[in-house]
Amino acid sequence: MADTESVKELRARTGAGMLDCRNALAECGDIEKAIDYLREKGLAKAAKKAERAASQGSIFSYIHTNAKIGVLLELNCETDFVAKTDEFKKLGHELCMQIAAANPLYISEQDVPAEDIEKEKDIYRKQALEEGKPANIVDRIADGKISAFYQDSCLLEQNYIRDPKVKVKDLVITEIAKMGENIVVRRMARFAVGA
Amino acid sequence: MADTESVKELRARTGAGMLDCRNALAECGDIEKAIDYLREKGLAKAAKKAERAASQGSIFSYIHTNAKIGVLLELNCETDFVAKTDEFKKLGHELCMQIAAANPLYISEQDVPAEDIEKEKDIYRKQALEEGKPANIVDRIADGKISAFYQDSCLLEQNYIRDPKVKVKDLVITEIAKMGENIVVRRMARFAVGA
Repeated sequence: MADTESVKELRARTGAGMLDCRNALAECGDIEKAIDYLREKGLAKAAKKAERAASQGSIFSYIHTNAKIGVLLELNCETDFVAKTDEFKKLGHELCMQIAAANPLYISEQDVPAEDIEKEKDIYRKQALEEGKPANIVDRIADGKISAFYQDSCLLEQNYIRDPKVKVKDLVITEIAKMGENIVVRRMARFAVGA
Repeated sequence: MADTESVKELRARTGAGMLDCRNALAECGDIEKAIDYLREKGLAKAAKKAERAASQGSIFSYIHTNAKIGVLLELNCETDFVAKTDEFKKLGHELCMQIAAANPLYISEQDVPAEDIEKEKDIYRKQALEEGKPANIVDRIADGKISAFYQDSCLLEQNYIRDPKVKVKDLVITEIAKMGENIVVRRMARFAVGA
């Protein structure tokens, strides 16, 4: 399976090194599984990178066709060299499209104010009780609904508009692994006319 | 003085009607004075329009050359017809350039929180006292410095970057008079990388 063509495709799709790709293909037998395998390894690498300071980067914008929706985004990385790559620019563009289409209210779970979470949970608990759910599982139901709330309202937890099997944070983490630098969505703004 | 060429130029520069331009030229004798005269009349007209609801409009963005500064702006008007004019688009673009270059913190004086104004005034009062200014004029000095603060930090009070004799709000008011619709800067965001 580790023929030159497959290795080449795997490298292009993951950004991983030649030897890692060869090993992953030998281990997994096909490209899709090898991608998952490398992503898992990549994720481990990326997690370490995600602690590093990212103070370079670029500002991106996207104005939807009729100029009724617009997005502004600051995407940070560690060096101006990475900020200038097509790969980084593509990520910035994709994130803007995501924000325009899926209208996240926060960047990550950590950005949701604690009182907003409590307010949401309270509503879910009351709904569950009114639906006649037993009191001892009401908290578990509320916790479940809070994950759905995060997935709706936090950019990094949303399903990627072009591939709903992937979360936006996975998209970012994959790029961190590919580019070898920490990448951070620092801030965003989304304006819709009259909204 | 009210020859066809002058009337044509005056119309192009003010957007006023044929008869108004002819009268203004007859009254004032030269184009520059006629512009002021028409603007004063235009301003009076625009002030009435500025009370009308503006819920249409467009989102504008501007990314500065190196992608280190970006601006997002919602500019409202009364009808989608006006939103689609080149004139309106030009105003949106100019306002974005202004925000990128002059970094306003607020749109208008009304957007500055009362406690920020008090804090600023307090600093100015203390500075004046330390400089040995008599206590009875310290308040007047603080008020004077607050106007300078507004002119620095409020978009509509700033001097227009392309013509420092004109305030940004005059630019907007002139467009209100020209287009015959209320125009409102609704919200803005300005991101600078790492700032």
